[in-house]
Amino acid sequence: MFHHVKELQFNARVSKPDPRFARLLLEQFGGGNGELKAAMQYFVQAFSCKTPYPDKYDLLMDVATEEFSHLEIVGSTIQMLLTGVNGELKDAADQEEIMILLDGQAAKEGFIHEAMVNPQFGVLSGGGPTLTDSNGVPWTGSYVNANGDLSVDLRSNIAAESRAKIVYEYLMKFTDDPYVKETLGFLMTREVAHYQMFEAALNTIQPNFPPGVLQSDPRYSNRFYNMSSGAEFRGPWNEGVSTQMGETWQYCEDPLAEVESTNGLVDLEPEGTDRTAESVKKADEKLSDIRSEEVNSATPENDIQWSLYKNK
Amino acid sequence: MFHHVKELQFNARVSKPDPRFARLLLEQFGGGNGELKAAMQYFVQAFSCKTPYPDKYDLLMDVATEEFSHLEIVGSTIQMLLTGVNGELKDAADQEEIMILLDGQAAKEGFIHEAMVNPQFGVLSGGGPTLTDSNGVPWTGSYVNANGDLSVDLRSNIAAESRAKIVYEYLMKFTDDPYVKETLGFLMTREVAHYQMFEAALNTIQPNFPPGVLQSDPRYSNRFYNMSSGAEFRGPWNEGVSTQMGETWQYCEDPLAEVESTNGLVDLEPEGTDRTAESVKKADEKLSDIRSEEVNSATPENDIQWSLYKNK
Amino acid sequence: MFHHVKELQFNARVSKPDPRFARLLLEQFGGGNGELKAAMQYFVQAFSCKTPYPDKYDLLMDVATEEFSHLEIVGSTIQMLLTGVNGELKDAADQEEIMILLDGQAAKEGFIHEAMVNPQFGVLSGGGPTLTDSNGVPWTGSYVNANGDLSVDLRSNIAAESRAKIVYEYLMKFTDDPYVKETLGFLMTREVAHYQMFEAALNTIQPNFPPGVLQSDPRYSNRFYNMSSGAEFRGPWNEGVSTQMGETWQYCEDPLAEVESTNGLVDLEPEGTDRTAESVKKADEKLSDIRSEEVNSATPENDIQWSLYKNK
Amino acid sequence: MFHHVKELQFNARVSKPDPRFARLLLEQFGGGNGELKAAMQYFVQAFSCKTPYPDKYDLLMDVATEEFSHLEIVGSTIQMLLTGVNGELKDAADQEEIMILLDGQAAKEGFIHEAMVNPQFGVLSGGGPTLTDSNGVPWTGSYVNANGDLSVDLRSNIAAESRAKIVYEYLMKFTDDPYVKETLGFLMTREVAHYQMFEAALNTIQPNFPPGVLQSDPRYSNRFYNMSSGAEFRGPWNEGVSTQMGETWQYCEDPLAEVESTNGLVDLEPEGTDRTAESVKKADEKLSDIRSEEVNSATPENDIQWSLYKNK
Amino acid sequence: MFHHVKELQFNARVSKPDPRFARLLLEQFGGGNGELKAAMQYFVQAFSCKTPYPDKYDLLMDVATEEFSHLEIVGSTIQMLLTGVNGELKDAADQEEIMILLDGQAAKEGFIHEAMVNPQFGVLSGGGPTLTDSNGVPWTGSYVNANGDLSVDLRSNIAAESRAKIVYEYLMKFTDDPYVKETLGFLMTREVAHYQMFEAALNTIQPNFPPGVLQSDPRYSNRFYNMSSGAEFRGPWNEGVSTQMGETWQYCEDPLAEVESTNGLVDLEPEGTDRTAESVKKADEKLSDIRSEEVNSATPENDIQWSLYKNK
Amino acid sequence: MFHHVKELQFNARVSKPDPRFARLLLEQFGGGNGELKAAMQYFVQAFSCKTPYPDKYDLLMDVATEEFSHLEIVGSTIQMLLTGVNGELKDAADQEEIMILLDGQAAKEGFIHEAMVNPQFGVLSGGGPTLTDSNGVPWTGSYVNANGDLSVDLRSNIAAESRAKIVYEYLMKFTDDPYVKETLGFLMTREVAHYQMFEAALNTIQPNFPPGVLQSDPRYSNRFYNMSSGAEFRGPWNEGVSTQMGETWQYCEDPLAEVESTNGLVDLEPEGTDRTAESVKKADEKLSDIRSEEVNSATPENDIQWSLYKNK
Repeated sequence: MFHHVKELQFNARVSKPDPRFARLLLEQFGGGNGELKAAMQYFVQAFSCKTPYPDKYDLLMDVATEEFSHLEIVGSTIQMLLTGVNGELKDAADQEEIMILLDGQAAKEGFIHEAMVNPQFGVLSGGGPTLTDSNGVPWTGSYVNANGDLSVDLRSNIAAESRAKIVYEYLMKFTDDPYVKETLGFLMTREVAHYQMFEAALNTIQPNFPPGVLQSDPRYSNRFYNMSSGAEFRGPWNEGVSTQMGETWQYCEDPLAEVESTNGLVDLEPEGTDRTAESVKKADEKLSDIRSEEVNSATPENDIQWSLYKNK
Repeated sequence: MFHHVKELQFNARVSKPDPRFARLLLEQFGGGNGELKAAMQYFVQAFSCKTPYPDKYDLLMDVATEEFSHLEIVGSTIQMLLTGVNGELKDAADQEEIMILLDGQAAKEGFIHEAMVNPQFGVLSGGGPTLTDSNGVPWTGSYVNANGDLSVDLRSNIAAESRAKIVYEYLMKFTDDPYVKETLGFLMTREVAHYQMFEAALNTIQPNFPPGVLQSDPRYSNRFYNMSSGAEFRGPWNEGVSTQMGETWQYCEDPLAEVESTNGLVDLEPEGTDRTAESVKKADEKLSDIRSEEVNSATPENDIQWSLYKNK
Repeated sequence: MFHHVKELQFNARVSKPDPRFARLLLEQFGGGNGELKAAMQYFVQAFSCKTPYPDKYDLLMDVATEEFSHLEIVGSTIQMLLTGVNGELKDAADQEEIMILLDGQAAKEGFIHEAMVNPQFGVLSGGGPTLTDSNGVPWTGSYVNANGDLSVDLRSNIAAESRAKIVYEYLMKFTDDPYVKETLGFLMTREVAHYQMFEAALNTIQPNFPPGVLQSDPRYSNRFYNMSSGAEFRGPWNEGVSTQMGETWQYCEDPLAEVESTNGLVDLEPEGTDRTAESVKKADEKLSDIRSEEVNSATPENDIQWSLYKNK
Repeated sequence: MFHHVKELQFNARVSKPDPRFARLLLEQFGGGNGELKAAMQYFVQAFSCKTPYPDKYDLLMDVATEEFSHLEIVGSTIQMLLTGVNGELKDAADQEEIMILLDGQAAKEGFIHEAMVNPQFGVLSGGGPTLTDSNGVPWTGSYVNANGDLSVDLRSNIAAESRAKIVYEYLMKFTDDPYVKETLGFLMTREVAHYQMFEAALNTIQPNFPPGVLQSDPRYSNRFYNMSSGAEFRGPWNEGVSTQMGETWQYCEDPLAEVESTNGLVDLEPEGTDRTAESVKKADEKLSDIRSEEVNSATPENDIQWSLYKNK
Repeated sequence: MFHHVKELQFNARVSKPDPRFARLLLEQFGGGNGELKAAMQYFVQAFSCKTPYPDKYDLLMDVATEEFSHLEIVGSTIQMLLTGVNGELKDAADQEEIMILLDGQAAKEGFIHEAMVNPQFGVLSGGGPTLTDSNGVPWTGSYVNANGDLSVDLRSNIAAESRAKIVYEYLMKFTDDPYVKETLGFLMTREVAHYQMFEAALNTIQPNFPPGVLQSDPRYSNRFYNMSSGAEFRGPWNEGVSTQMGETWQYCEDPLAEVESTNGLVDLEPEGTDRTAESVKKADEKLSDIRSEEVNSATPENDIQWSLYKNK
Repeated sequence: MFHHVKELQFNARVSKPDPRFARLLLEQFGGGNGELKAAMQYFVQAFSCKTPYPDKYDLLMDVATEEFSHLEIVGSTIQMLLTGVNGELKDAADQEEIMILLDGQAAKEGFIHEAMVNPQFGVLSGGGPTLTDSNGVPWTGSYVNANGDLSVDLRSNIAAESRAKIVYEYLMKFTDDPYVKETLGFLMTREVAHYQMFEAALNTIQPNFPPGVLQSDPRYSNRFYNMSSGAEFRGPWNEGVSTQMGETWQYCEDPLAEVESTNGLVDLEPEGTDRTAESVKKADEKLSDIRSEEVNSATPENDIQWSLYKNK
């Protein structure tokens, strides 16, 4: 259950209207890495861990709710940056007078020119935010990643916070308004904080690699296929040992030859690893038991109830 | 700024898992008339009336926040209806044993069959809600209508509540679970309540017809064009007087003839109305002055701030 | 069955080309509140009432057909506003000469600059309308609301006409071309006319509230939840009696407390209303009988035929 | 300007309801190769040839209008195939009685089962067509191809008619209803007719290859790059002369070697063709003059008017 | 299996950065007629003809792979046209200094101005290509036409190449950079080459009209319905004989009258053709046998394998 | 430049047709975490690092090309799982005979029933893969994350590989075909390998936290806001020190109170950190210099060329 208080989480202000920056800022309102995406992603992920992982549920709802509050900050800032547009549009009959708008400098041509910045500010939203990215493309549910597995979802969140952070960083290049920069700085910093929260939560899940339950096939887990020839490089991603599993990278110089000589890789033998089909099977079964038990034991099969009420 | 409490606004429960109904219920989670649409529509509309119309802002945020809380109820119910799916998926290694799932009756074939109901419950979301409609189409920002004018936005909301109501009504035909019906009944009723709130708010705005500021051209406002011949009917929509403006409907039997004889309607004269071009112009100017003043007077042009903090 | 005559319903003209306004006007061609949306919405709604409600079918097809005719007016105007672009593009080999285009003032740089207004006018459509909104986002079927219930659909239409009206009103701020303003004035006025037609049709359906068939739960239909605290307001939407049902609003100051003390609202008792669970059940059954009979009696179950032909 | 008559162009009938086939048939209502796509494609293309190519405008509007009429046939058929669903939904209160629905055989479980076919028939549209494809994906304006050049647009139409034809052919495999097959046969045949109309129209444009105005570079127009090695085939697409320009195909066995030896193809010399850079330039200029003159001469630069009215 | 070499198929270069043209060029990167659409269309079509039509499979994969290589050329060109943007964004702390960017002439205002060209170059992609069209609309799988029938698919490809060709032709109007024009000329010419390849392949399939297997109904295959009255024209599309089937066009002046007098066209008799229901049935059966045999005989029903490996 | 060899990278086989699993497998063909998404994401990211970071360019192109090869494996498998559908559809005339299809057991009803699994296999694609997810939703460019910064992009890739891995894991629960499981196991394992490659590459970039260039504001980087009250938990994400920056988490029990007492957080002082506004500014400037130099120094400002050809 949500509750709203009228004050913003951060004291968002703008020095003067700036429809151009309002357009850019839409990227964080209705864009693919924006605040609505973050809020909805954590909110949707939370459902599946409510019962089995209540601590992660608490974390996800804390951050989701903060992101909704950030969405409100971004929308408010866009509205303030568009000050004057709505009032001008309401002056619908008065076409002949000189328009005093947008920091005083604009007559009709200027108003039209500004409208080109984002036509929908002028002809659709009446000078308010639209649920789109900076190009006017509507927000879509396909931005949201929620896969019902915390070792995956938390990694999705770490990446999402990284993208949100860089977009705020880029945005700061396009405004000189000290108030707006202050707000952007706050929002950018919170992505850095959330990143570390999700990372810490991921670390509490052990093992968390590979993500999910199943281990991987030792024949294919440490091979590097050189699919792109010319200007080739070697680095820790194709020589030495792999980061998580400590297997030795096998560099395949000529993938086609390997494919043809191994009946399409089916006949390949594991190299550079101690794992075997047998050890994998055992690990798969063990983790399957643990994870399915965690989930199943937490949920009754009938007469399921979400909340218990204190005063019941 | 939002706040979340872990309890749901309504005590949502399910008697037993039902993946088929979970799929149908997605229509109100990520569908075009669902709870997220409602929540986001009122939330986005609220920005433009925060300063000039604080009472409507309060109403919009009250209902928006309640709709977020309903979104949570719907998502929780879907999660409960999918009980067992996530645990089964986590049992990733254990393919050979008989699966005990979904009210006890299903072996592997059954599990696969259920997966066909909505494949993404099985292979994407791990048995949780997806931000899609009942066909798996992602939610889109284009569902949201917010036009920066309360006489328009409140009408959009009345229609939105009507659609949300009928979808809940339809949904009730597809479940026998008394707990689920109870929850659906609560949610459906709240749409009825919200409808009347928005209607009452619209009534406090006078004049509120036509929506917006500009009046309409008396030559064209009361003509009915019979564009679809055969099986024709007369009714209060094309005879007698019009509902809001009290003009007398002019029924045009043969639109093509009228168009050709009036130079493409340009030479048409007003009939069945007292309004004239002159009276319209005067009304336009008067309302323009009022509405633009309402908006402009409420907002400073520089150093704009959204919230004032009590303890500042 | 449709028929087309080459003349437009309204004598659309433009004084001179104006690619910028052409872009804005796309909002009413392929945008979410534009003419195609209106035409398709009424056309799709019409199918379900063809047999049981032939008078409403006639109305919906009359207006749908007029909206298709308006779509043609809008598209023609965009084409005229882009005069010169197509011819210029066809002059594909002739890059070196000075281009005489767009009211005489533009050389190559100007042509490129104009192209930025909407790139697809220049590189995709060859200077004609695209089936997109003013930002280039393609029209989508999700704009269309058709729910198989006239008490819902007509309300959707009233709201749709309101939005279409305000967009025309906004558009008029962005052009000085008297011909274009004349066309916009006609189109805007027709939305006002259609609004009243749909409202009149809705009034002939009794009862029409709540939309659909089912009544609402008297425990929840008149409660107002104060979900958004700070800067609170009271008004006819949360005090006095509700607009349609005449129940007394119950203002809930502290929703969380109420939720906790009523077992998640399940134990709440009705207040401020005479309705009871019993009276609701009776009303539901009565209206169910009437509405299902209206629909079922009008349609044979086998050998169903849509049209009867006069000369058969 | 459009006009509608209540009778369908074809006497569409169904023997009995069949929600499964209704779902499949959506592919031709709101799908990517369906009737709305065709109608809108020709309608949008028509704008740019109204003045310079009035004969093609006439053709495009004739076919566009017929496709709208076919859309109506498809929608009507879907509605008839869903007979019973709407009436059942209106019987909202009556959950306990045995439902007599869908050819008599179905009780509640059957109704729910049918709903799974396409949930939106049950919970959204009330048993009518939705503007989606057979998977519920909304129709989108991106289906429409209109590029402001008849030598391109007519080819897009030939391909579109081909696709529409095969979808009707496939659909016929999934119904045994003789009435429905009759309707599908009519609609399929009309695609075959339209195909030949567009082809005939394309033939009247000379030259019509390459599409558009510009010729092609003789160095690259007749080379075949063997980019996909193994199981290679030779045929008239890479040996002998090319279909339209009569140049001799040059088969490049080893594209990488050619690219490296020609400074990225820049230094390649024309082979197997008589065309030269010079001859191309001349042809480009000549056709540019013709085509741009055709368009420009037909349109005034100011005070542009779309229709002339007979009785003016 | 794909392989990549670091060199581009064509030596793409740019004289100097030009973010405006970069935006336009997105139309061929992530737009509806761009290189990714072409590549994916041929790639997806190829799957169904791998076994029964290996020569067409070879052709489709050759061209698909070339289109992927063209996609790389287009993306590289966009990246080069945006030179300077990424470096400038990385200079995140240094707001006060004069920015030296974009051919030397731009200070901060200029940088912001350029950002408006396509905001996502500035705030999302960091100065690289986005998978969108020139308006920022994301590429969608609905661009791809693949219908499992070569007589249809090859026609879709001919049309697709036509559209791609005209878009390159249009694009050349918007740049003076000789390097860029050279690249565009190469890419445009390859569309002309591919067009003729697909046409030649189509010609090897006999019969290939009508597309697919089923013939058409002789009652409806040669009728022209004059659905759009006023300014009517006659041409080879509605008089004389039809292009492919050689039937005589029957011009129906008054479609409504015909529909009404023939019981909705059901009672119409064939005219202007020698074909009969009988001859059609025979042809349908014959071609059904041939085509289904071609497909079925090529594929085993069990233990199906895609590739055979040389060294197995 | 790409090259294709006809053999698959892995020897994909199926035991027998299975249209239901074909539908599920679409999730990895045209779904949001599927192979096309991965291929396009790495391919698009590669453009911006071609010059400044050639080692990462090599890695990204190696993996992108492998993912294209996996896309081909997935598509081939879907095609094989649909064996029989295309041949059956080609038998277009032969409706009366008993159909022998799909492992021998299915007559017409069975064929129709299977079609319901995914209607587009039957009526659109002719029994081949569609570029959609398992619900038929078209692939969209918005799945692709490419932000022009390797410290962000590599994290996006790590998360993308995690999601792809879990989807393969889930898919394995829905098939018993040992060949298909073998293929899925290979593909799943490669995601595990790629994950570790991207992680190793990220580790070579120092510093890589925070992602991008700018540091974060020490006032807000280590605060945890308890936005979601009830059932609260403490863990390493809100107590102790943060994972990357080693600052001490500050737990804010009552965010509203803090907001109100600090003028909307503007007056908050840093706690639990040694960083200051001064130290942040210095770090920002230093990293700005390094990163912008890396990018700018690698690219000429004029006459930019992508590839150098060996034999030039």
